[in-house]
Amino acid sequence: MGNAQRSVGVGLIGFGTVGTGVVKLLALRSAAIRAQIGCSLRLVRIADLDIRTDRGVRVDRRLLTTDARKLIADPAVDIVVELMGGYEPARQFVLGALRAGKPVVTANKALLAVHGAEIFAEAERQVIDLGFEASVGGGIPIIRTLKEGLAGDRTRAVYGIVNGTSNYVLSTMTREGREFAHVLRDAQREGLAEADPAYDVDGTDAAHKLALLVTLAFGVQASFPHVYTEGIRHIEPMDIAFARELGYTIKLLAIAKDHGDSIETRVHPTMIPQRHVLAEVGGAYNAIYIQGDALGSSMYFGLGAGMMPTATAVVADVMEIARARQRGVPGRVPPLGRPWGKLRRVSTRPMGDITSEFYLRFMALDRPGVLARIAGLLGEERISIASVIQTERKRETTVPIVIRTHAALERRLRKALQQITRLRVVRGKPVLLRIEERLG
Amino acid sequence: MGNAQRSVGVGLIGFGTVGTGVVKLLALRSAAIRAQIGCSLRLVRIADLDIRTDRGVRVDRRLLTTDARKLIADPAVDIVVELMGGYEPARQFVLGALRAGKPVVTANKALLAVHGAEIFAEAERQVIDLGFEASVGGGIPIIRTLKEGLAGDRTRAVYGIVNGTSNYVLSTMTREGREFAHVLRDAQREGLAEADPAYDVDGTDAAHKLALLVTLAFGVQASFPHVYTEGIRHIEPMDIAFARELGYTIKLLAIAKDHGDSIETRVHPTMIPQRHVLAEVGGAYNAIYIQGDALGSSMYFGLGAGMMPTATAVVADVMEIARARQRGVPGRVPPLGRPWGKLRRVSTRPMGDITSEFYLRFMALDRPGVLARIAGLLGEERISIASVIQTERKRETTVPIVIRTHAALERRLRKALQQITRLRVVRGKPVLLRIEERLG
Repeated sequence: MGNAQRSVGVGLIGFGTVGTGVVKLLALRSAAIRAQIGCSLRLVRIADLDIRTDRGVRVDRRLLTTDARKLIADPAVDIVVELMGGYEPARQFVLGALRAGKPVVTANKALLAVHGAEIFAEAERQVIDLGFEASVGGGIPIIRTLKEGLAGDRTRAVYGIVNGTSNYVLSTMTREGREFAHVLRDAQREGLAEADPAYDVDGTDAAHKLALLVTLAFGVQASFPHVYTEGIRHIEPMDIAFARELGYTIKLLAIAKDHGDSIETRVHPTMIPQRHVLAEVGGAYNAIYIQGDALGSSMYFGLGAGMMPTATAVVADVMEIARARQRGVPGRVPPLGRPWGKLRRVSTRPMGDITSEFYLRFMALDRPGVLARIAGLLGEERISIASVIQTERKRETTVPIVIRTHAALERRLRKALQQITRLRVVRGKPVLLRIEERLG
Repeated sequence: MGNAQRSVGVGLIGFGTVGTGVVKLLALRSAAIRAQIGCSLRLVRIADLDIRTDRGVRVDRRLLTTDARKLIADPAVDIVVELMGGYEPARQFVLGALRAGKPVVTANKALLAVHGAEIFAEAERQVIDLGFEASVGGGIPIIRTLKEGLAGDRTRAVYGIVNGTSNYVLSTMTREGREFAHVLRDAQREGLAEADPAYDVDGTDAAHKLALLVTLAFGVQASFPHVYTEGIRHIEPMDIAFARELGYTIKLLAIAKDHGDSIETRVHPTMIPQRHVLAEVGGAYNAIYIQGDALGSSMYFGLGAGMMPTATAVVADVMEIARARQRGVPGRVPPLGRPWGKLRRVSTRPMGDITSEFYLRFMALDRPGVLARIAGLLGEERISIASVIQTERKRETTVPIVIRTHAALERRLRKALQQITRLRVVRGKPVLLRIEERLG
């Protein structure tokens, strides 16, 4: 039984930031890894379109190739690590490796969120390991935790701060009271945000990650296209200040709740209580906060991106797979923690059907009776008001009117908003933010 | 290959709080567990000296026995779960089960911290799985995280809030400004502290857990008797108030640092910055904060005790072992993450050799020159003062003098303290608390 070898050959596709981190870590930790798993991890090939740029790490140039297919076919490559990102050709390479009988480690959340059904099914059919710890939460071992650590419990809800760029921008806006556009520009200058920041600040990256978390946490076939996604571009310093006055901090949260017959999956800026442990997660840190029936609350916190943090997750996966390989027993746990066929098929609640408390801000002419009219229209949709902030008093200029509602159905709230927007005294687009009061 | 069965028989030794939780969870989650691991977990026997008390959970009375040895020998028992606690006879039962070729799941940190060498060696020799996720951090999957999730990194330091009772007492003292004895008495009344609280409030429980964490985190043979242990009985509301004034919160921290050739392992009340994420861990919550070379900071947070949280950790271990059993491949990962023989042998630094910043409080007669004399004696040991609080001014009564030092060797500090205590103007025993400024 088994293919016990002195060393296991690793082939790396994608020699970017994380790939460089993996090369560094495999070199730095080689003796420790051998002591732990009983064999060496040997980097035998690296594929990238750019094999000229110096990555500041020592690599035998003969390992480099521009042809990923050749890497996959190389008999010296026992495990394929895909770190190129994107949908194609990453999808073909991952499927190609699996079909060639080679286990895969990937950090590619976009690929798995969108093409997961095909890829996970292939891995399971072939009984081949597929590790993706690095795809969510960088170095935080959240995938393992959900697959095995929390396997005995029924997880009811997941709240994740899973996009470091957005969290950095929001944290900085909160601390410094500055505008989104300025903070983003500074972050881009410092290399903390991409030149094209859309994937991060519009919530798509968080939605990709949430789709994976939901599948593991609830044991359901989650669907990325059904994740409601709203970014942070429309957050204004004024709303952060009002949130603080009301006792909240604004975070881009990836939220999932399991209602049994249906689930909620949504990414949007969310007001959470200032004293909640998630509110303290600042800068480029990520955190995943989980509510379970038996376990109650637990949280997993760490650096969600970056060369070395993400590399630790990749190497941990490679070590686990190498161990299985040494003993000749791949497929110990299916990639999603349970067989694909055992995932529950559930519907995703439309956003209109979710219940939440809301923060609303209107810019309105400061005339007598404006608040009464707004309250009246909310009342018609059976939405009750928890508190109101109405500060300045300047006739014939617009002033902000802030309303915090009690729990209400989003569909009713939107209907009321439509009516309110039509009022002649209300100017511009109202701001709507969801509040998670209890995170339970 | 393998012993694939439709169901795996679980034998439970110890039908106390956590045992009852395990019985409940196995019943509640039976369908979900079967879907995940492909076989049922069937509770086939329960041993406890008390088989009469109603635990409020439905159990076929024929499963009950007072004879744990019979349970271990029962061929229907595939996995032995030890939840009785204590050293003996738990040690004999765990070793007996392993020698009978049966995998063991235990929550018994005292047993593993003190008799681990014997038990882990036996499990490894027999290539039998031994799960102990429930022994540290209750439902927080910190054992798995250290064994596999962080395996690619080099962990440099561990900071744990791992005793819920102490944390509850300290959090309550901090919030309410009340005395240790009063808060403890209330906690005992509410069932949040044991009638004999020594194991918790004197730091022994935390030291047991730290010995296990250190072995996993650093890959060393850690020695429980070498863990420096100091409890929280001497913490006074005055010191909590001064700590706050200086920007710190006092927590009972289990601290371990890896210096390569030696390690530090110590449990004591520690001042940490108020804004640090660990400072926010209140009540019965536990958290383990980890510093790694590549990963940087990460933290794992959740309920560290209690019937159902701890039961989730036990069931997760049973599921993992049942999976291995189904496939006939036990011993995938050695109990300590690497073979016993690969653990580094390092010495533990004596407390005199550790470097720390210190908080000192003296009660002294308020006479001119007292502070100068204290500062002089500290200076003789090359200890420099970072800040001083000297509040009241009442002639001929004692007043507190609080000094925060810069980093200093503990041996030198103790020498200075001896000299200071001899001053005629200083009354009573000085208070010494260690400060962890950076937790790095």
